[in-house]
Amino acid sequence: MYLLTKTTKTELNKVQATIAKELASEKIIQEIYEYIFNAQGKKTRALLCLLASKSSDIKPNNRIALASIIELLHTATLVHDDVVDESERRRGTKSVNQVWTNSYSVLMGDFIYSKAFILMVKLGIPSILDELAKATNDIARGEIIQLELFEKKQLLKLDDLLKVSYLKTGRLFEASAKTGAMLACKSKEEIKIFGLIGKALGTAFQIKDDILDYEAYGTNIGKPAFKDFREGKITFPLYFALQNANKKNKRFLLNNLGQSKLLKKDQNIIYQIIQDDKTQKEINALLDKYIKESLKHLDKLKNHPCYNEMLDLVNISHLRKI
Amino acid sequence: MYLLTKTTKTELNKVQATIAKELASEKIIQEIYEYIFNAQGKKTRALLCLLASKSSDIKPNNRIALASIIELLHTATLVHDDVVDESERRRGTKSVNQVWTNSYSVLMGDFIYSKAFILMVKLGIPSILDELAKATNDIARGEIIQLELFEKKQLLKLDDLLKVSYLKTGRLFEASAKTGAMLACKSKEEIKIFGLIGKALGTAFQIKDDILDYEAYGTNIGKPAFKDFREGKITFPLYFALQNANKKNKRFLLNNLGQSKLLKKDQNIIYQIIQDDKTQKEINALLDKYIKESLKHLDKLKNHPCYNEMLDLVNISHLRKI
Repeated sequence: MYLLTKTTKTELNKVQATIAKELASEKIIQEIYEYIFNAQGKKTRALLCLLASKSSDIKPNNRIALASIIELLHTATLVHDDVVDESERRRGTKSVNQVWTNSYSVLMGDFIYSKAFILMVKLGIPSILDELAKATNDIARGEIIQLELFEKKQLLKLDDLLKVSYLKTGRLFEASAKTGAMLACKSKEEIKIFGLIGKALGTAFQIKDDILDYEAYGTNIGKPAFKDFREGKITFPLYFALQNANKKNKRFLLNNLGQSKLLKKDQNIIYQIIQDDKTQKEINALLDKYIKESLKHLDKLKNHPCYNEMLDLVNISHLRKI
Repeated sequence: MYLLTKTTKTELNKVQATIAKELASEKIIQEIYEYIFNAQGKKTRALLCLLASKSSDIKPNNRIALASIIELLHTATLVHDDVVDESERRRGTKSVNQVWTNSYSVLMGDFIYSKAFILMVKLGIPSILDELAKATNDIARGEIIQLELFEKKQLLKLDDLLKVSYLKTGRLFEASAKTGAMLACKSKEEIKIFGLIGKALGTAFQIKDDILDYEAYGTNIGKPAFKDFREGKITFPLYFALQNANKKNKRFLLNNLGQSKLLKKDQNIIYQIIQDDKTQKEINALLDKYIKESLKHLDKLKNHPCYNEMLDLVNISHLRKI
């Protein structure tokens, strides 16, 4: 979906091949791997790392290795998120198959995490190890805070949401860009700039993800709508809607939040409440703010070999439909 | 419960304090931490590491740090095991509280794992990082293989059980002893010996754990009996019992395996089947084999400052009642 050069596309394919190779140690793990990776993701974090590490001075293999490590870390968090989300959504009975999947997901997530750490140690750059270990810890911390946060419901503050978005999404974007620049032995100043681009882009990415969860209802992109809402998650659009809605609508939203089964007519009401002009204006202004922040920092890298592709990446993150 | 010198006891207390300090970053994490650590474990792996790293040449703080890292890794696997075991045992409905606990457990496990990696990076010894990243990966691999293995039921082989015991328990014992010796800058030969002691001791530890799960029924130590059996786990005692039992008893065991609720009279039958002379002889012979193997390797370290305490550790692991 991104406008990529042929070289970058080839590199992203190499990332996919590396991941497949690294997870193929046992038959059962290969089977679960295929189950988890049946759909290839956008690999935005790996891409960010590949772009930030562009340099004629380093071994191309190390760039692929680092991008694969980052994609593995991200995948491990996704696998564990499935357990967390599923447990909340399906409060009733579980089929044996779902149970097995849960157990396997926890262990497979651990397997992937530790595989990423093995590869990091092999890469052997202490500053990169440090950054990625800290980012992994921050992601878990962000998810834990998020669990607690949703209990607050309408008392939730925008700053709380921004903090969680940074920790669970922005933090790995930041680390992807920073470690890419570290691998390319860039100056402290340039590493810092890449970190700031990644951080702002990651937050924008999360805001856009939250928006798309509601927009899926109005459009026809085949993605299930209101997944966050059904899981009881207060995301950016819902936050603004709760601020702006009248008493009746507010009560309606809070009463239905976390209900896995939503009637068609109720889905329609939710969609209409979110579509409110003021809510839409505020959510889009927030997205714009973080996109502009990434662009502001990116502007300092006009001579970097990644500049054009990075510009595309930021602009497309803003406009993407999936 | 171990016969420790005053110095070692003080060191183990410092390990506990280090862990508490490292996990106290957010209020919610501190709360979960207290929930998880309400009972202090035996810290056998931390102890093994402290003993193997005894040397006058290294900073005492680094020994405490490494032992804390190992205890954190072990704790993370325990926290995740709870999710895995619980999902299997409670196939029916879950209370909201249990669900929250599940979600929190997955994320808290990740938080603890990554905290351990941050501390490892800070310690800054590549060979230790490599060994612990690989051990963590092997543990997850062992647990995944175990999930698949229990489906085999009576077709399970002793070698399968030994492989899983090594990966899920022996491997971290091995890494604890090896990295302790690495920290103390011992020779390759001595690091290898420590690894072999740890590996054999870890397997013995697992066999003893499996035995205690059944013996808890006969004795009165306040530990719930047949936990493994109720969770559908085929452990060493059950393996031998299935080999030796007559058709009727074998069918009885297989029919009840994995039942969370066992009638008192059925518990009695299970206990009697496991108490069979041949079964008891075989399981004790297996335990002895691994204890003797640790002692054989330990014999080469008669001049090491840890020798006496290590000898106690091995002998007590054999005789322990909890």
